[in-house]
Amino acid sequence: MATDNLTAVLHGIEDLRLEQRPIPEIANDEVLLAMDSVGICGSDVHYLTAGRIGDFVVTKPMIIGHEAAGVVAKVGKCVKNLAVGDRVAIEPGVPCRRCDHCKQGKYNLCADMVFCATPPYDGNLTRFYKHAADFCYKLPDHVSMEEGALLEPLSVGVHACRRAEVGLGSKVLILGAGPIGLVTLLAAQAMGAAEILITDLVQHRLDVAKELGATHTLLLDREQSAEETVKRVLCTMSEAPDKAVDCCGAESSARLAIFATRSGGVVVIVGMGAPEIKLPLINALAREVDIRGVFRYCNDYPAALALVASGKVNVKRLVTHHFDITETAKAFETSRYGHGGAIKVMIHVQPRDANNSVKF
Amino acid sequence: MATDNLTAVLHGIEDLRLEQRPIPEIANDEVLLAMDSVGICGSDVHYLTAGRIGDFVVTKPMIIGHEAAGVVAKVGKCVKNLAVGDRVAIEPGVPCRRCDHCKQGKYNLCADMVFCATPPYDGNLTRFYKHAADFCYKLPDHVSMEEGALLEPLSVGVHACRRAEVGLGSKVLILGAGPIGLVTLLAAQAMGAAEILITDLVQHRLDVAKELGATHTLLLDREQSAEETVKRVLCTMSEAPDKAVDCCGAESSARLAIFATRSGGVVVIVGMGAPEIKLPLINALAREVDIRGVFRYCNDYPAALALVASGKVNVKRLVTHHFDITETAKAFETSRYGHGGAIKVMIHVQPRDANNSVKF
Amino acid sequence: MATDNLTAVLHGIEDLRLEQRPIPEIANDEVLLAMDSVGICGSDVHYLTAGRIGDFVVTKPMIIGHEAAGVVAKVGKCVKNLAVGDRVAIEPGVPCRRCDHCKQGKYNLCADMVFCATPPYDGNLTRFYKHAADFCYKLPDHVSMEEGALLEPLSVGVHACRRAEVGLGSKVLILGAGPIGLVTLLAAQAMGAAEILITDLVQHRLDVAKELGATHTLLLDREQSAEETVKRVLCTMSEAPDKAVDCCGAESSARLAIFATRSGGVVVIVGMGAPEIKLPLINALAREVDIRGVFRYCNDYPAALALVASGKVNVKRLVTHHFDITETAKAFETSRYGHGGAIKVMIHVQPRDANNSVKF
Amino acid sequence: MATDNLTAVLHGIEDLRLEQRPIPEIANDEVLLAMDSVGICGSDVHYLTAGRIGDFVVTKPMIIGHEAAGVVAKVGKCVKNLAVGDRVAIEPGVPCRRCDHCKQGKYNLCADMVFCATPPYDGNLTRFYKHAADFCYKLPDHVSMEEGALLEPLSVGVHACRRAEVGLGSKVLILGAGPIGLVTLLAAQAMGAAEILITDLVQHRLDVAKELGATHTLLLDREQSAEETVKRVLCTMSEAPDKAVDCCGAESSARLAIFATRSGGVVVIVGMGAPEIKLPLINALAREVDIRGVFRYCNDYPAALALVASGKVNVKRLVTHHFDITETAKAFETSRYGHGGAIKVMIHVQPRDANNSVKF
Repeated sequence: MATDNLTAVLHGIEDLRLEQRPIPEIANDEVLLAMDSVGICGSDVHYLTAGRIGDFVVTKPMIIGHEAAGVVAKVGKCVKNLAVGDRVAIEPGVPCRRCDHCKQGKYNLCADMVFCATPPYDGNLTRFYKHAADFCYKLPDHVSMEEGALLEPLSVGVHACRRAEVGLGSKVLILGAGPIGLVTLLAAQAMGAAEILITDLVQHRLDVAKELGATHTLLLDREQSAEETVKRVLCTMSEAPDKAVDCCGAESSARLAIFATRSGGVVVIVGMGAPEIKLPLINALAREVDIRGVFRYCNDYPAALALVASGKVNVKRLVTHHFDITETAKAFETSRYGHGGAIKVMIHVQPRDANNSVKF
Repeated sequence: MATDNLTAVLHGIEDLRLEQRPIPEIANDEVLLAMDSVGICGSDVHYLTAGRIGDFVVTKPMIIGHEAAGVVAKVGKCVKNLAVGDRVAIEPGVPCRRCDHCKQGKYNLCADMVFCATPPYDGNLTRFYKHAADFCYKLPDHVSMEEGALLEPLSVGVHACRRAEVGLGSKVLILGAGPIGLVTLLAAQAMGAAEILITDLVQHRLDVAKELGATHTLLLDREQSAEETVKRVLCTMSEAPDKAVDCCGAESSARLAIFATRSGGVVVIVGMGAPEIKLPLINALAREVDIRGVFRYCNDYPAALALVASGKVNVKRLVTHHFDITETAKAFETSRYGHGGAIKVMIHVQPRDANNSVKF
Repeated sequence: MATDNLTAVLHGIEDLRLEQRPIPEIANDEVLLAMDSVGICGSDVHYLTAGRIGDFVVTKPMIIGHEAAGVVAKVGKCVKNLAVGDRVAIEPGVPCRRCDHCKQGKYNLCADMVFCATPPYDGNLTRFYKHAADFCYKLPDHVSMEEGALLEPLSVGVHACRRAEVGLGSKVLILGAGPIGLVTLLAAQAMGAAEILITDLVQHRLDVAKELGATHTLLLDREQSAEETVKRVLCTMSEAPDKAVDCCGAESSARLAIFATRSGGVVVIVGMGAPEIKLPLINALAREVDIRGVFRYCNDYPAALALVASGKVNVKRLVTHHFDITETAKAFETSRYGHGGAIKVMIHVQPRDANNSVKF
Repeated sequence: MATDNLTAVLHGIEDLRLEQRPIPEIANDEVLLAMDSVGICGSDVHYLTAGRIGDFVVTKPMIIGHEAAGVVAKVGKCVKNLAVGDRVAIEPGVPCRRCDHCKQGKYNLCADMVFCATPPYDGNLTRFYKHAADFCYKLPDHVSMEEGALLEPLSVGVHACRRAEVGLGSKVLILGAGPIGLVTLLAAQAMGAAEILITDLVQHRLDVAKELGATHTLLLDREQSAEETVKRVLCTMSEAPDKAVDCCGAESSARLAIFATRSGGVVVIVGMGAPEIKLPLINALAREVDIRGVFRYCNDYPAALALVASGKVNVKRLVTHHFDITETAKAFETSRYGHGGAIKVMIHVQPRDANNSVKF
């Protein structure tokens, strides 16, 4: 096996280095993966620029990256679901499997979760990476490695729509047309939403949303009050949305979500902003509009994969830029500043399309 | 207003007559409808040939027909949601609104339900018919009257899939590719099913199912045992279905549904056959495969309409034959014997396309 | 029939008068009730002192009172569930029965709800009052009229616990030991909660809660920070509560509820305070702690009645004071200022125990 | 440590032997338990008399017993939740933790479940037994070892009532007053059932049920038809039950459950009888009465423990006989033939009350 294991390691704020790391040894229930594609997430950029997200602080060097797909290079003794050569998407968190949350099917809330590129745990922007075999999902031949990596953000969209209980005939308001807003859009469509209005402050993003199937788009105006914006939303949709998914996390968007949602509806907040937010709580409470958060995903990868494999959603459109792992610094810069209308930036650990049956 | 009110009245077994009836007077919360399109349902045919369905017996002349759409000709004093000229789909059952079932959102279980063409209540294959305004759904301009009438069977499919909790990534087995099997297929797709296998004894029906988007079809062989058939189902699908919807009601299909469904899954039985059925109950119980029935629909019309209006499903393909109300006898014959590969037979009370902005 | 119809009418802020009103005429689906017992609710007092609650403003004279029970004096032509002489509890809101919310089993969210003593609709602190027959619940002989009146607040507790999904083994934190906190306690116990901690600023109220079965009580200290209070809660309970029901509505108690609740749990907020509240939203979102409101009740009266009739809960303990309707002013004063440790003040429209088989 | 490890081993039909076995070695996440109390279950007796239950066949010697509690004698390196000396109830099945069912919170459906005394896996009627630490539940001091062992059947009752969605105000019909019927009764009460009718063919068992709090009992008559029996049920209860839990598994009781249950209700079948059963399926389907099975339990031990610890239920009443492990043969005989009105027979591996703070 190759001994080269070039790896992107975050040493601290604004200090991301490429360096060689030993190839990991696997346990009986793990596989060793030759990594192929790793997307850059907003959280990766945030660790680079701020060294922390909330209580998660980078205090020692940490491998970055968690939206990833790779090829099985070695399998542990007890692994039955995978074989060498299998192309897999990697669900980046492995829970304890023993606590109440794990046993009750909410493993995303496990307090002992080991999650890629969340301190103190290493991520997978590296040539060789090991992972629990049961959190690797074999890709059908016609699904590309890049799509495998994109299952990570898509799973967030799926989880958000499941938390919102989007279903046949739902009228959905999505706030924010960034990567998470867009995957939420894709998931909501696939779950039978009848109408989807997506908002943003940038017209370019709305154009992409329209292209991906949003029934309505609305360019927000920072100068307008929440009341005025709600009116515009209600004028645009056939009736008040019964589901709102806030993918921004700003106080203003959480407020808009509450005011706009129909009585008895659900507001799901994916994006997270300031720790403290002023909310029109009585408006929500007295109309039984529920407020729910989203923490990563849980049992959502299989549905996300089915969605992509069946051709129902087009996640390819999200990828706007490609870089080799040796260009990691430039890739992060592109994602960070949104250069060239960047939505999703993909880093290739192996040559592009090396493991795809059809070019991406 | 016209005084002609030609009406199809079932007087008894094999005794369906066209006759004039008085135009109904409406109450304050009702509308008078100039009927346009009325589809023939298997139950209509059953009343014609057997005079009864279970405990519902035709003991006096009954107007037939309940899959219908019409145009508002008059509105009651308290009606706010509709105006004269509105084109509407008619949800054919009006519940008591006062019992526990009604208050708990399960009005389809209301014991005092007044349901079109279910004895002793009249149906709506007639020129003028009155109905509770809130059970009439205004059609957008681009939706045809025929599609309006088809919301009735489509709502059964929607209700069946909701009872089955079909969702993103579901693997669905549908037994029977008749009209109800096909609308269940359409609903399951729209709700995000990843894989749908549909079975039938007739290849022609499977061809239509394939055309409508079934991912797999399976021609059943009456000679094969349930065990053999289950094997064929499991070989065809990527894994055991987590949802099975039986649209036949035969003992053999209910058994197949149970044996094939994955542990923890759901078997929904729409079709109803013999009152007593021998079931492999332990197989279902010990694997916690739930068995659920479907009685009509409840709060499903809005979703069915949204589905059709958004263009997500193509119900037009279900209509194979058209007749004028004066040809009612021939229409029933066509539906009854499946002449010419009949799936859904539509009766036109007004000239075809008279109320459609685009030809059907 | 008596022609005396002494009635408590709120003419404006601090202007509550006793005056004669005509005895109402009933419709076909209504009953006329000879009122017996009417409890005073915080909202009644609020209308008296502020003339409004949120957007509901008293702009013309309004009969006060909505926690009530009476005896059927006359029945409408279509009424089948009740007969003259029946003793009934009155669910004070009658919805439109026709909108989506009504059809979906969430009639409490009906926009056209006619609700006692919510402007512009009259309440029932009067000798004769008419009501929709299906929103009157016949009391078994052994249940007193006062208990019938108490089903109203108890239904709020039931609805709150259902919204919180309290179940077998739940660990419940209840904030506030006023009447609503206490009925929530009773409902939570009956639904199988394993542990219930209730908090208040007043020791006397906690003593009552203890007597009614709270497993823990905690006297809050206004000087303590939310963090300190959370610690005290967590030290007292065997583990973090999975359900919190805030019956205060203050910003501080909503905050405490969020901080204290276990990941994946539910915070239900019954009490309503300021329109805008500063919340530690990320704390809730990132742990998928859901925030839900409670608006009155819906399909909760039957369970509340079953609870009282079976003797599982003792609501009698809530009633601390009794007054005749002629003493209405004094009754309101007692409730308003909490004189004599007032919890629930009951007004008797007929002589005490006139309609009870056993003395209250 | 003692080297004596007297163990009850089933060698085949009617061949249960007491023999010495080596004391097991524990893994890092396991504990070694000095067993204290082991109850005899119907399935234990069935293995003794028939050598199999369905597809589970005793093909090699198997240690019997699975309703058990013990004292921690040794802890594995990674165990944090337990210490030597802890008294624990043992949830007897350990799932794979890796399959979809495990991840989705339905670990009872795990195909790779290792379950005590289900071939080919050993049970725990033995002096020393090892078990996964996270499936051992520490008992509070005031809970006896026998009660710890009884959490196993109680968990079945809890799971059955959860599957039935028993809640506040439920009217519950329980068929069969054997041990499972009785624990279902206890669980249903604790979850807020308003009315519980329990049936049996034996008056003595109904007397115990009454003592434990059943609101109604009904002695069945084998000569009566299902229709007649349904009438008797409906005459006895205030209205048709919305939940029925069949703890017999006979065709007749499953039929009764379906016929008696209110439209929209749930029939849960715990007991399992013949593989094939003739059912009045249309009756259930057309009234949307759901049919659900129960397979063991899942996430139910904590609630069962809370129930016992809080004193809400009295499981002690179920234990009618006590034997020492050396009297295992006699214990099985008592349970098998119901000698002396046996309900639950308890086998003591250690002297009675050796580990109880209060005598059982």
